[in-house]
Order: sequence, then C-alpha cells, then structure tokens
Amino acid sequence: MKKNHGGNIYSIVREYGIPADEIIDFSVNLNPMGTPQAIKKMITESMDGIMHYPDPEYTECRESIAAYHNLPYKYITAGNGATELIFLYCRIIKPARTLVVAPTFSEYSRALEAVGSGINYFRLEEEDEFRPDIDSLNKEISRGYDLVVICNPNNPTGTLFSKKEILSIAEHGARTGCRILLDESFMEFAFNGGNLSTVIENDIPFNIFVIRSLTKILSLPGLRIGYGVSADEELNIELAEQKEPWSINVFAAKAPCYILKDLNYFEETRRVVAEENEFLATNLAKFEWLKTFSSPANYIILKILNHMTSPHLGESLLKKKILIRDASNFMFLDEKFIRIAVKDRESNRMLIDALSEIN
Amino acid sequence: MKKNHGGNIYSIVREYGIPADEIIDFSVNLNPMGTPQAIKKMITESMDGIMHYPDPEYTECRESIAAYHNLPYKYITAGNGATELIFLYCRIIKPARTLVVAPTFSEYSRALEAVGSGINYFRLEEEDEFRPDIDSLNKEISRGYDLVVICNPNNPTGTLFSKKEILSIAEHGARTGCRILLDESFMEFAFNGGNLSTVIENDIPFNIFVIRSLTKILSLPGLRIGYGVSADEELNIELAEQKEPWSINVFAAKAPCYILKDLNYFEETRRVVAEENEFLATNLAKFEWLKTFSSPANYIILKILNHMTSPHLGESLLKKKILIRDASNFMFLDEKFIRIAVKDRESNRMLIDALSEIN
Repeated sequence: MKKNHGGNIYSIVREYGIPADEIIDFSVNLNPMGTPQAIKKMITESMDGIMHYPDPEYTECRESIAAYHNLPYKYITAGNGATELIFLYCRIIKPARTLVVAPTFSEYSRALEAVGSGINYFRLEEEDEFRPDIDSLNKEISRGYDLVVICNPNNPTGTLFSKKEILSIAEHGARTGCRILLDESFMEFAFNGGNLSTVIENDIPFNIFVIRSLTKILSLPGLRIGYGVSADEELNIELAEQKEPWSINVFAAKAPCYILKDLNYFEETRRVVAEENEFLATNLAKFEWLKTFSSPANYIILKILNHMTSPHLGESLLKKKILIRDASNFMFLDEKFIRIAVKDRESNRMLIDALSEIN
Repeated sequence: MKKNHGGNIYSIVREYGIPADEIIDFSVNLNPMGTPQAIKKMITESMDGIMHYPDPEYTECRESIAAYHNLPYKYITAGNGATELIFLYCRIIKPARTLVVAPTFSEYSRALEAVGSGINYFRLEEEDEFRPDIDSLNKEISRGYDLVVICNPNNPTGTLFSKKEILSIAEHGARTGCRILLDESFMEFAFNGGNLSTVIENDIPFNIFVIRSLTKILSLPGLRIGYGVSADEELNIELAEQKEPWSINVFAAKAPCYILKDLNYFEETRRVVAEENEFLATNLAKFEWLKTFSSPANYIILKILNHMTSPHLGESLLKKKILIRDASNFMFLDEKFIRIAVKDRESNRMLIDALSEIN
C-alpha cells in the first residue's frame, strides 16, 4: 500500500522549485502556535544528551505522562510518534478480522495489512456529515471482530465520538472479545486533558488501547513523541518486550517532562484553534462552491461543489504558494475533497484571499 | 526475550545513586573522540527543522550515503539506527530457518523470534580465539537456511571476516537460496570506508543486505542513524514500502550530509582507536588474571581467569565509578566475560589503574 500523507513539502520543493520557507503549508495538522520556545531551549541545554543512549525504559518521560493523566506509570508506553505504537500494537494483537471506521488515517490499514489482518470498513457517510450511527457500529462489531480502529476526533473528517459512545463501543466489543484501538492524536486540540476521552479516568476499559501524540500539539514532527495508554497489564508487558530499543530520540523523550508541567500552552492552543476554526468556517461559508464540514480539531475537511477537482484546486493554490491536502486518496473520499489545517490568523486570511481569487 | 545491552546508565544512576556525569562508561561502544562539533552546530542551526516532518524518502540523507560509498542511490535504505533495519529486514524476509554466528548482538535473535524464525547458532569457539572456520560455516549453510546473520567485526568478540570470506559465504548461500544479513555497524572504526567490506564495490552480491551504523562512529546514540545497502531491487522496494514513516528524526537525517563530506574525523577516529586499542592491549596484558581477545574495533572482550565473576568485577569497578559491560548474557559466554569500550587515553588509564587496585 502506498504511503499518502500531507506534509511532503520536500517533493513539492523538488517538483515545483518553490523554496520550502516560502510555502504556507495547510497540508499538515500541526499546532498553529508553532513549537513552544521551551522545547527549543531544552534542546540547546540538553545538547550533550545526543552522546548518550536514551533510557530504554523512558522512565522520566513516562512518569511525566502518567502524572499528567493521573494514571499508573505502568499504563504508559512511549513511542516514536503515534505511528510506532499503531504498528507495534497491530503486531502484538495480530487481529484476524479488523473493522476500521473510515475514511481515516491510512497507516492503520498499512499496519493491519503488514500483519495479514482482514479489514472491513465501517463507512462514515457524507450525507450524515460523517457522523457515526453508534447502534449500527455496535451491531457490526457484534458480527465478530478481533479489533475495531477508531480515530477520535477522526482525521480527516473531524468526526467526534463522545465518551459515552466510546464506552458503549468498548462494552459491545468486550462481549465478543473485540479490542479497540482508539487514536486520540488530535484530542488535545479540542478538549482539555482529553475531556471526552477515556484516558483521564482510572477505569479505562480493559479492551481499549488509547494512542496519544504530542507531535502535533507541540508542533514537533521532526522529532516525534507519542504514547499509548492501557489498563491491560499483559498487553503493557508485551508492548515493552516487543518494542524496538531506543526508537525515541533523547530530545523527544525529554519533551513531556518540560511541557506537561506547563499547560498554559495547551490551553492557549485550544483557544486559538477554536477561534481560528470559527474564523475559517465563517469565511469559507461565503464560497458557494465549497462545503465545510465542522471539526472540533485543528483541521477541516471541505468538499468542492463546482467543476473543479481537488488536484486542480491544489495546483491553483500552489501557484500562490499555498499547499493543501488533496483528500482524494482517503478511502471513500474522491477528487472533490480537500483537507486544510487550522493555522494562524495571517495564514488563514491568505488562504481565504487565495480562494477568493480562484473562483 | 529480555533486552540486555550496555549503556543503561539510567538504571545504574537509579540503583546506585551515582550522578550520570561522574560515571566513566566503558559499557557502550561509542567513538572515543565524542560527537563531532559539526553535528552540534548543525542541530543549533537546523533548530526550525523540528517543526517539519522529515522527508519521507530521506532523499538528501540517502544521496550523501550513496555518494560516500559511490553506490546507486536506490541501493540505500535509511534507518533509525541499525536496529530499525534489523527488525524491518527480518519482517520482510520472514526466514523460516536462520543461522546466527554467535556470541553476538542480541537484537538479531529478538527480531528473528518476533517473526517466528527457527534459529540455529554457529558457535565461535573461545579456544579458537573466536575465529570462525569458514569451511565449517559454509558446510552448515549448505544444510539449508533462509538466512545467515553475521556481525562484522563481531560484537562482542571482535571477530573479523575478510572480504574474501564474506564473498565465499555469499556464494555458498546463493546456491541454496540463503540470504546474508551482514551487520557492519563497527566497520568504520577498523577500516577506511569499509576496506574489508562488500559495500564499496559495485558488485555487492545480490543476497547480502549490509547494515551500517553512523550512531557509533558519530557518537550519536541519542539521535541514531543507520542505513542498509542492497543490490536487490525488489528488496529495496519492499524496504521502502514496509518502513514505518518518519522514523528518523530531522537532525539524524541531516547528519550524513554534514559528516560524510569531511572524512578527517573518520580517519582520526581510526588512528585514535588503533592507538588506544594497543595501549589497552599492552596494559591489560600485565594482568595475569585477565585474558584479552584481540579486536580491530572500538571494544575488547576480556576473560577473567581468577575466582572473580563478571558481575563481581563490574560491582568493584562501579564503586570506582567505572561502568563495564557484563558479557555473561551473550549466548555461549558466561560469568567470566566482560566487554570494555576503547575510550580516550585518560579514561583508559583510569580503567587500568582501577583494575590494578582490584587484584
């Protein structure tokens, strides 16, 4: 399966000859506030750390995360971004049959195919604004799966499952021995400490593996740090045993220790994202040829209602040095869909201006 | 399988309460010259790189490596250290039967067990100074294996296979469809550009996958960068397709671009390692209770000939703030073996002094 993602500004630079720093990149879903200064300072101050192997247990890193969520240390597995954990978890669970709620992030299918899992897709319908019908989903789960994969909020559709819905799915899954891979990589953008999530509770359902990313909220894709949370002791031991050693670099491993003590940055991020999300929604609504799907997070999916295709629109915007995500390679989406990040006001305004000039 | 390695200074700090910066660490095999200043400068200058996803193709990184070895770009796969490549290769090859030349680095067995491979060990014998009998090895290979794993020079024994020997093994392997995983992570410490290696030639045998590490020679374990080299086009495509995205951080990906143009650092390293290796060998020879096995690389394996055990010796040295590698958990070695790194003269002298005081 081909890897298709936003963020490959490198191929754009090579193909179009536009210098990377002149491109406004709406194709990646990072924090519009950029990387916290504290992280850059930490890197400068911890420079000698590059000469030492990372702690193979990532003790301090996991302690910070456990303290942040008020959960036991042993519940936490650190990862080289969310991606390492998605692949590692699939290799351990080795599901024979998996149900993936889609359209969604393509790496789930890659990780599942790599372990030979059969994959069915539970389709979120455009006419339902990509809202899930939980009863139908639970009914499908009852047909017998080893694993259900849910991204919450979902990338790219912005679909949000409430805590009640997740708990209902977990309960249904438990009846037939079905596990849930719950990717909450974008939850921090929407809700304080995972307000809607199962993470902050001490009673995480046994069959849920929650994945969190700090890469996006810290705008740290060049270093990457993520973590998994589970109450299943056997699973946690297996994750530790099967994990490739030293996969997380020393700077990334230190990031949680620095940032999870100062949550103003997270709060300010949510304020900015909510504000800019509204600014974009209001201004995008003026374009009759574009339909906006609401999102609680730092990205929005749009449908092109006129003759244009997503590659065509992407090309037109690229001439104005704006890079968007052609969403046509997400399963169940077609060449009418694009995804944009929610960025800072200046960038967002430039996008709106560029769109005005196009049609 | 338990992960047992040197370099876990973190557990020592936790257990013994000695501050990390007071410990002289002979347990990890890094460059005695430390990290090149150019790398630290690069990190400071590329700080904004943390805000961008790494190039998923690692184009510039691989171009530098290809140019260094004068090999086609497509031969090169970049990895998060050698380890990612060991695991990735084993997952792709999925060998049913593997022959591992041992005692050796324990991650080969972990990676093989993870894909369910049966493992036989070709034992390097202490009485032969851990030199391999190539005819016996080839004979064993002829019995039918999917894969042979050779670390060259071998960690921890320092065993060196000549280019002629490697080519003979590759040829024997080819007859029965056996591949060779050739880990040359320490080759740069011993020989210019892989003098004895198959890498610099344009005719790399089709069935060899060479793994190189820059982590050790650049003393960069906190960031990690390695690469694989193969002439097998199908394998190279599979490696690219199966690789987890963005596993190498931006700083590590940049390191080859900076360092492989200035090879003075490598030459100086080889000079220092050769000199210090001799200094250590000469001085260790004075201890009748220690047997030294010769090594071309930046580590030496030693056997304790008196009543002491390796944990006992390790404990005694730790009281003097010197950390060595207890080698007893390497297969076929026992509690009489330790491994030390070849470090700078001052550290090496302190080790010799500490050993003098012990017995």
